Amino acid sequence: MGDNVALKILKEHLVEGELVPGQEIALRIDQTLLQDATGTMAMLEFMAMGLPRVKVALAAQYVDHNLLQTDNKNADDHAFLTSAAQKFGVYLSKPGNGVSHQVSLERFGVPGTTLLGADSHTPTAAGLGQLAIGAGGLDVALAMAGHPFHLTCPRIWGIKLTGKLQPWVSGKDVILEMLRRHSVKGGVGKIIEYYGPGVATLSATDRATIGNMGAELGATTTVFPSDLNTLAFLKAQGRGEVWRELLADPDATYDDHDEIDLSQVVPLIACPSSPDNVVPVSEIEGLKVDQVIIGSSVNSSFRDLMTVCRILDGRKIAPGVAFHINPGSRQVLENVVAQGGFMMLLLAGGQVHQPGCLGCIGMGQAPGTNQVSLRTFPRNFPGRSGTKEDRVYLCSPETAAAAGVFGVVTDPRKLSDLLPWPAVQNPEQYLVDDAGIIFPPEDGGAVEIVTGPNIVPFPELPALPDRLDLEVIIKVGDNISTDTIMPAGNKVLPFRSNIPAISKFVFEQADPEFAARASEKGDGAVVGGENYGQGSSREHAALAPRYLGIRVKLAKSFARIHRSNLINFGILPLTFRDKGDYDQVKQGDRLQIANLRELVQGGATEIPVRVNGGEIVTLLHASERERAELLAGGLLNKVKEETNGGQS
Amino acid sequence: MGDNVALKILKEHLVEGELVPGQEIALRIDQTLLQDATGTMAMLEFMAMGLPRVKVALAAQYVDHNLLQTDNKNADDHAFLTSAAQKFGVYLSKPGNGVSHQVSLERFGVPGTTLLGADSHTPTAAGLGQLAIGAGGLDVALAMAGHPFHLTCPRIWGIKLTGKLQPWVSGKDVILEMLRRHSVKGGVGKIIEYYGPGVATLSATDRATIGNMGAELGATTTVFPSDLNTLAFLKAQGRGEVWRELLADPDATYDDHDEIDLSQVVPLIACPSSPDNVVPVSEIEGLKVDQVIIGSSVNSSFRDLMTVCRILDGRKIAPGVAFHINPGSRQVLENVVAQGGFMMLLLAGGQVHQPGCLGCIGMGQAPGTNQVSLRTFPRNFPGRSGTKEDRVYLCSPETAAAAGVFGVVTDPRKLSDLLPWPAVQNPEQYLVDDAGIIFPPEDGGAVEIVTGPNIVPFPELPALPDRLDLEVIIKVGDNISTDTIMPAGNKVLPFRSNIPAISKFVFEQADPEFAARASEKGDGAVVGGENYGQGSSREHAALAPRYLGIRVKLAKSFARIHRSNLINFGILPLTFRDKGDYDQVKQGDRLQIANLRELVQGGATEIPVRVNGGEIVTLLHASERERAELLAGGLLNKVKEETNGGQS
Repeated sequence: MGDNVALKILKEHLVEGELVPGQEIALRIDQTLLQDATGTMAMLEFMAMGLPRVKVALAAQYVDHNLLQTDNKNADDHAFLTSAAQKFGVYLSKPGNGVSHQVSLERFGVPGTTLLGADSHTPTAAGLGQLAIGAGGLDVALAMAGHPFHLTCPRIWGIKLTGKLQPWVSGKDVILEMLRRHSVKGGVGKIIEYYGPGVATLSATDRATIGNMGAELGATTTVFPSDLNTLAFLKAQGRGEVWRELLADPDATYDDHDEIDLSQVVPLIACPSSPDNVVPVSEIEGLKVDQVIIGSSVNSSFRDLMTVCRILDGRKIAPGVAFHINPGSRQVLENVVAQGGFMMLLLAGGQVHQPGCLGCIGMGQAPGTNQVSLRTFPRNFPGRSGTKEDRVYLCSPETAAAAGVFGVVTDPRKLSDLLPWPAVQNPEQYLVDDAGIIFPPEDGGAVEIVTGPNIVPFPELPALPDRLDLEVIIKVGDNISTDTIMPAGNKVLPFRSNIPAISKFVFEQADPEFAARASEKGDGAVVGGENYGQGSSREHAALAPRYLGIRVKLAKSFARIHRSNLINFGILPLTFRDKGDYDQVKQGDRLQIANLRELVQGGATEIPVRVNGGEIVTLLHASERERAELLAGGLLNKVKEETNGGQS
Repeated sequence: MGDNVALKILKEHLVEGELVPGQEIALRIDQTLLQDATGTMAMLEFMAMGLPRVKVALAAQYVDHNLLQTDNKNADDHAFLTSAAQKFGVYLSKPGNGVSHQVSLERFGVPGTTLLGADSHTPTAAGLGQLAIGAGGLDVALAMAGHPFHLTCPRIWGIKLTGKLQPWVSGKDVILEMLRRHSVKGGVGKIIEYYGPGVATLSATDRATIGNMGAELGATTTVFPSDLNTLAFLKAQGRGEVWRELLADPDATYDDHDEIDLSQVVPLIACPSSPDNVVPVSEIEGLKVDQVIIGSSVNSSFRDLMTVCRILDGRKIAPGVAFHINPGSRQVLENVVAQGGFMMLLLAGGQVHQPGCLGCIGMGQAPGTNQVSLRTFPRNFPGRSGTKEDRVYLCSPETAAAAGVFGVVTDPRKLSDLLPWPAVQNPEQYLVDDAGIIFPPEDGGAVEIVTGPNIVPFPELPALPDRLDLEVIIKVGDNISTDTIMPAGNKVLPFRSNIPAISKFVFEQADPEFAARASEKGDGAVVGGENYGQGSSREHAALAPRYLGIRVKLAKSFARIHRSNLINFGILPLTFRDKGDYDQVKQGDRLQIANLRELVQGGATEIPVRVNGGEIVTLLHASERERAELLAGGLLNKVKEETNGGQS
């Protein structure tokens, strides 16, 4: 029985455990990715380990999130990251150079390697046949220090692609079709691997789009084979020499199965306010559109943007539509300029911004109250746009451009009345320019770290006590995202290296009193539903609640990265054995757990919790390694204990 | 005795008073300009007057300040402005279409006409031979309603220009030379008129640069003749038909005199933190630069930006310098793209932003702590950048580009070691594109006004009482700018249509407790030094303190627009008869004024104020019209009284 692509890469990188789904394994990491929203804290954590230089083949730090700079804080943090990158041997992609995932694809990705990124959309690198996993900042900091990455061995989910996409349909519609079928929980515990004859019809960048939003399915990651399309992209980047062929064996099998006939995929759109709220575009045609945004970590490629240019060429944006363009990278923008596309955007009335995440992370571009916003972004969780009552739709560049032309939601296939399908291809040779990347010196020993006044020391986190008696500070429902737990945007993100300050914003939109109430009690618990902590990988969604005193999160189920982050910062991630017990617990109740250290240390999976005079049974699924972290009060405490020879 | 250009335009527009310096006059207004920071309130004020349509030849509303949109507020206000513009017959320049002054120059300005703008840099239109004056929003709203504009008849200050600028020296250096000689108070009460043989050597856009920063001299406005260079610019815009020649008579005289030999002007730079803190660039050469920003309402032309492109062509921005470009308008950007300049900026490593005010009004681009920022902007008042302890320098595009190339402050003439002086000229025919301008319909009667939740009713302002007994809530020094009184930036500006909310930020950087203290007392006074209220025209610097209860501002002298705004909102602008008395008053003292209504009504210029058991004499220089406004508690109250036939 042959191996699929995912298994081949896993086997080549396995350093602990066995490749049995559900068991803990550890992988050797070849490349790491940090962005500036998660990376400032991660870089501080790396520094806390005392190494002179990173120990991975390639580490990169991108400044793509905090581009607005409304006071000193972002500029100060950028200066910190630049100096730290120089000192520790990290490539630094400067502000305005582009979204991390797009730049990584262009300049750094290598087929068959592993990439660990402190960003949930790290699996964009699937476009190159890379095994790329999103993780918490502390996990990435450990990888930068040469440690392997621990995870639960996922199931491999084979998606057989047949046929070929029709005109006006593109990669975004394929991943929206996956979300339509399988929901934001469909990929939990799985690596999605695309295979079959349809794969060869997809460019590396369409594959990247599909890989990116595997995150929205909750998948551990996505992989594509590395084939001649991969080679073509790498050659066009002047990096053909890093290519290797990596195909599933002819007799490869998969743990789970699905199949998509690409020729049957129609233009799709995710309605407010979840990426899996997907319908055919034709179903909501005619809805008045106020704002369109092209760009983000998904749909950030030359093909995506140039397709929009061709659609707008010689036309004007409909009155009443604000049409924003966020190029995925400096390189994409330069190539679009070189091909004449930039002028098409301007003359049509588009607002072209510097390359970066921008509106996708709530850094500007917030829509007005009740306005309809069509975006090529990966996420539309409530309030993520910056506007509390937002109406954000997710779609392909083709669908977004059609809305710009017609002023209402329109099936992009209707554009064929105006122009032939432009069928834009990525260039055979990109204009390549690394002016936005600072290469690290051979020896960074002499570099001085620049630390601004916004960077405050990492808080002390006490070890796990033997007995907990906690008030439920908040109870929330299903699919709560890390955007809800720890908002981003221009108001909050500048405090990402200042835990006391950022913790004041925890659950701000859901319950503005949460932080004050938690602080006042001194400790507490959070109760959640299914898929708690989906979305962004931000570890602040664990660290900031922990700083406020949260010691237990009790939910029906957890999203993978958030669960790891909870353990990394010493919060017990308990699940209901009987999900019906969720209804027994309400805000204000007290949760009491006795003999906790013994239970955790002894490997108990059942943790009895007294609540309202009765008892419910909760589950702790955690490896021996994770239990040690929880006992220590978090991973950094454990690392410190080990450094001090067992003395905490 | 012949007339100078200023007198000719004044005579053609005089509707009240005599052209005697110091006397109150009223002028007919041909064109009005609103931007979105001042314009939302001004549009509300216009609406309060109940007219169906504006009564000026051309009214324009620009959205150039609040471009970041970090929540619903800015997008809501833009929707409001768009609908109001349609309804009332106002041209709307959309977000991303450019800085008001540059767009006005390109598309709307007409030689020999008057332009009243709710923005202190309105005199940029001097570049076209327009008499353009900055004023408070309420003044502009009145002008839109067809009322004449009242002002104190200024002295005409003739500046004779001889010679020709040397290579690497441009218009910005001329106005910096004026600031070096005459300080931020040098132009108070004056119209600056440039004449002489040197004028013909300056393009319309270099003249616009010089006119723009006449505001920094405190001047009422600046004028240039309308000559063949003016015609060339208008023809290049496809608007040659609006040109008329307008030259000073050969025997024209001026009230005041100075002379500049252009050939002797050297590259100059304004050091932190005042536009008149000017030295030759050569004096501070070698200073390490962290940030450079090209653009803003000054130096926003094609020539300015394309000069930077040529300097950067084939070079890389020095490591450690963040090099931002804010094109002045969509048109400028398009023309730079068409000439190949845009790619030069990108390949050099520049960060190109959408056209707009951006960092100049603290909307992003804040430098890091202690970082040196070189900007082609008009202002560097402390904290205006968004960073409290900022180090902002003002210079020409040539000097800014040199800093980008060398990484340190460098006399741009040293660039001649690298390339010949590019001597960029404005195009003979601009690529003209009005995709960013929404034209008003013939009849806006059916348009519905869109009002977002951020727009709250205008506060009630009581009439002037007969007796005041006020605590001095704050005492400040000389040259306090409206940026200090009412900060702008992304945190504050979104509240510009919400006076209760924005008033919490009054004096926030100087004294964070000011607003709370004033609110608690219920009423109060402010004591200031010379040139109180210089800088931006924002009327919120009067309206918000008034909302907090401030009834008197007592200063050594006032800047013109701020003094008018104080009267517009019913705050008494008193000056010390004996400037030495400034030292007798301190924060916490009580100021008592008796028989106030009688004094104001009776035309008294001396207002006795009891303070600390003694008495000081203060001066109220106000016209009869202004006194009526003060008695009513503000201009809107007076307009309402008149509408109600004298019933208040």
